[in-house]
Amino acid sequence: MDLFLTFLGTSASVPTAARGTSALLIARGGARWLVDCGEGTQRQLLRSGLGLVDLDLVLVTHLHGDHYLGLPGLLKTYGLRGRERPLLIVGPPGLVALVDRLGVVFGTPPFSLELAETGPGELWRGDGARLEAFPTDHGPRPSLGFALVEDARPGAFDVAAAVALGVPEGPLWGRLQRGEPVGARDGSPVRPDQVLGPPRPGRRVVLTGDTRPCEATLAAARGATVLVHEATLLDEDRERARETGHSTAREAAALGREADVRLLALTHLSSRFGPREARREAEQEFARVVVPWDFDQIEVPFPERGDPRLLPAEPTPARRARTAVASAEPATVFDDDL
Amino acid sequence: MDLFLTFLGTSASVPTAARGTSALLIARGGARWLVDCGEGTQRQLLRSGLGLVDLDLVLVTHLHGDHYLGLPGLLKTYGLRGRERPLLIVGPPGLVALVDRLGVVFGTPPFSLELAETGPGELWRGDGARLEAFPTDHGPRPSLGFALVEDARPGAFDVAAAVALGVPEGPLWGRLQRGEPVGARDGSPVRPDQVLGPPRPGRRVVLTGDTRPCEATLAAARGATVLVHEATLLDEDRERARETGHSTAREAAALGREADVRLLALTHLSSRFGPREARREAEQEFARVVVPWDFDQIEVPFPERGDPRLLPAEPTPARRARTAVASAEPATVFDDDL
Repeated sequence: MDLFLTFLGTSASVPTAARGTSALLIARGGARWLVDCGEGTQRQLLRSGLGLVDLDLVLVTHLHGDHYLGLPGLLKTYGLRGRERPLLIVGPPGLVALVDRLGVVFGTPPFSLELAETGPGELWRGDGARLEAFPTDHGPRPSLGFALVEDARPGAFDVAAAVALGVPEGPLWGRLQRGEPVGARDGSPVRPDQVLGPPRPGRRVVLTGDTRPCEATLAAARGATVLVHEATLLDEDRERARETGHSTAREAAALGREADVRLLALTHLSSRFGPREARREAEQEFARVVVPWDFDQIEVPFPERGDPRLLPAEPTPARRARTAVASAEPATVFDDDL
Repeated sequence: MDLFLTFLGTSASVPTAARGTSALLIARGGARWLVDCGEGTQRQLLRSGLGLVDLDLVLVTHLHGDHYLGLPGLLKTYGLRGRERPLLIVGPPGLVALVDRLGVVFGTPPFSLELAETGPGELWRGDGARLEAFPTDHGPRPSLGFALVEDARPGAFDVAAAVALGVPEGPLWGRLQRGEPVGARDGSPVRPDQVLGPPRPGRRVVLTGDTRPCEATLAAARGATVLVHEATLLDEDRERARETGHSTAREAAALGREADVRLLALTHLSSRFGPREARREAEQEFARVVVPWDFDQIEVPFPERGDPRLLPAEPTPARRARTAVASAEPATVFDDDL
C-alpha cells in the first residue's frame, strides 16, 4: 500500500514568497488526510499538481491561525464544487467553537461537516492501521501530535514450503497467509508458521505540529519510519524557542536521534532562514534528516522494501523560480507568537 | 505622481494554480490601497516582489469570502511584525460584524484597526484626489465599486511668457503656478492665466468588484483612464452571468466602449477559462482591453504623458511556469455563488 507525505506548507507563522503556512497531506492507499490547513492550502494543493483532493479527514494540531486559516476557504470551495462526501475535522478542544465562528465564511455546506474535539488517545482504527493523538508541549492551550501506526503484516509466504507440504496453489494459500491453518492434499494439517516468515512490521509516521521537544513525542516517535517534527528556529535562538513553545533544528534532530527514527523531516521553519540552514544545523546531530520545500514528498515504503526517501518536487521552472525567490527574501524578524 | 495598479488575484470565487482570488493594489505616490483581499493575499504581495506593503487602506467591494478571506491572516501578520500605523478598512454594511467575527483569528492587533461601513458617495479627499464609492449590481446584499478621481492640475507653465511679462524666476513663478496673481518687476499685475496653459485633467481609475454591467458603473467610468471590470464568465454563459450577478467579458467590453475608457482591464475570471479566452472575446467589442495575469501591473501616467499600459510581470521562470500550469488546468465547473 502506497504511503506518501506531501509538504504543502513549511513556513512557521507567516508565509514567505516560497513557502506557505502549515499543511501536509498523508496519502495512504486510497485515503487522503490533511494535517493542518494554513491559509492558502487549497491553492497549494492545486499548485502541487495533486489537485483539489477530496479529503477524507483533516487533523488540526492546535488552534493557531497559521494551522487552520485555510479551512474556511477550502470548505467553501468544496461546497461550490458540490461535494457530497462527509468531511471529518478532528482537533483539540475549542475546534467546534472556532469552526462555528468561521462558518460566516462558508455557510452551510452541501456535505456533512463533522467536527470532533479530541485529547490524546486512539482516534481511529481500520485498513490495517490506527491513528493516535499524543499531547505536545506548545503553551497553555491544548496541542496534539498525530501518529499513524500500521499493524504488523503477516510474514512473506514461502511458496516452496507450501508446495513441499502438499498445499495446492489457490484459496488455501490465501487462508494460510491470513493466519488460518489448512489441510494439505493428504489431509495432514499445515500451520501458517510452517509457510510464513516472521511478521513484517508496519510503518509508523509521526507528526508533531508546534511543540517543544517532549517525552510524548519521543515515546510516539520511538522507531518511527518517519518523524515530521517542527523546527521553527535555529540554535542561536534556542532561548526564544523555549519561551515560545517551539523547537530548534538541533533540538528536533537530537530527538530524532534518540527516537532512532528512520527518517526525520523538519518543517515549520521561520521565515528568517530556509531549509538549507536548518538541515546544516540538524545534520550535526543526526544524519537521517531532510528539510522539505513546499511540494516535496516523502515516499514511505514498507520497511522491507527500503528506507523512506525525499522526493524533491520536480525541478520545473516553478521550483527553480521558488528557490531564486527564496534566496532573495529579506530576513524579516517576527517577535511574537511564532 | 506615479500611479500603478498591481493585480494580486484575478480568479473568481476559487483560486487556480496560477491565479489567486480577488486583490488589487493601488500605489499612488506614497499611498498604498488594497481593493479586496482574497485568501492568500499576504503571500501574493510577497510573491509579487512588492513585499508585505504597509497598507494605508483596504477597500472591500462586498462581503463574499473570495474578497475578504485574506484579511485575518494579513492582520495577524501585521500584528506579528509589530505594525504601529493605524489601518482603515472600508466596506459595505456588515463589514464590522464580519471582521469582529474573524477577530478570533487575529486577536487584538497592536495597531489601531479602524473599520468603516459605507454606502455610495465620497469616502475621502486629499492629495489632489478623491475616492468615491458607487453602487454595483451583485445580488441582494450591498456591493460597491470604487473610483479614484484626481483633481485637474494647473496648466503647463509658460516660462517664455513669464519672462516676457517681467516676472523674475523664483517664488513668484510658484505662486502663479498655484493660481495666484503676482506683480511683475515694473509693478504691473500678472494673472495666472497669462502664463499657464489650460488646466490638465487628472486621472480616473474605476474598479467594479463583482457586478452585472450597470448604470452606476457606466456613470463612474465615463472617460476613465482605467476601468477594472469583472468578467467572471464568457458569452456562452451569459444567462448564468445574469442569474449570478456577474458580467461576461463581452458585456464588460461593451460597457468599456460605451464609457469610452482609455483602458479596460478585465479580472475575476472563472477558473474555467483564462486571460487569453477572455481577451479574445472582449476584443470583439472593444480594442483597448487587457486581461492581466496575477502580478501584472498597469502603469497609469498623467493623460498628457501617454496612455495607460499593461506591464506584464517579468518573464521570469516563475511566470513561464505559471503559464504552463495554467494551460494544464482542468476545466472545473463551479455551479454556485461565483
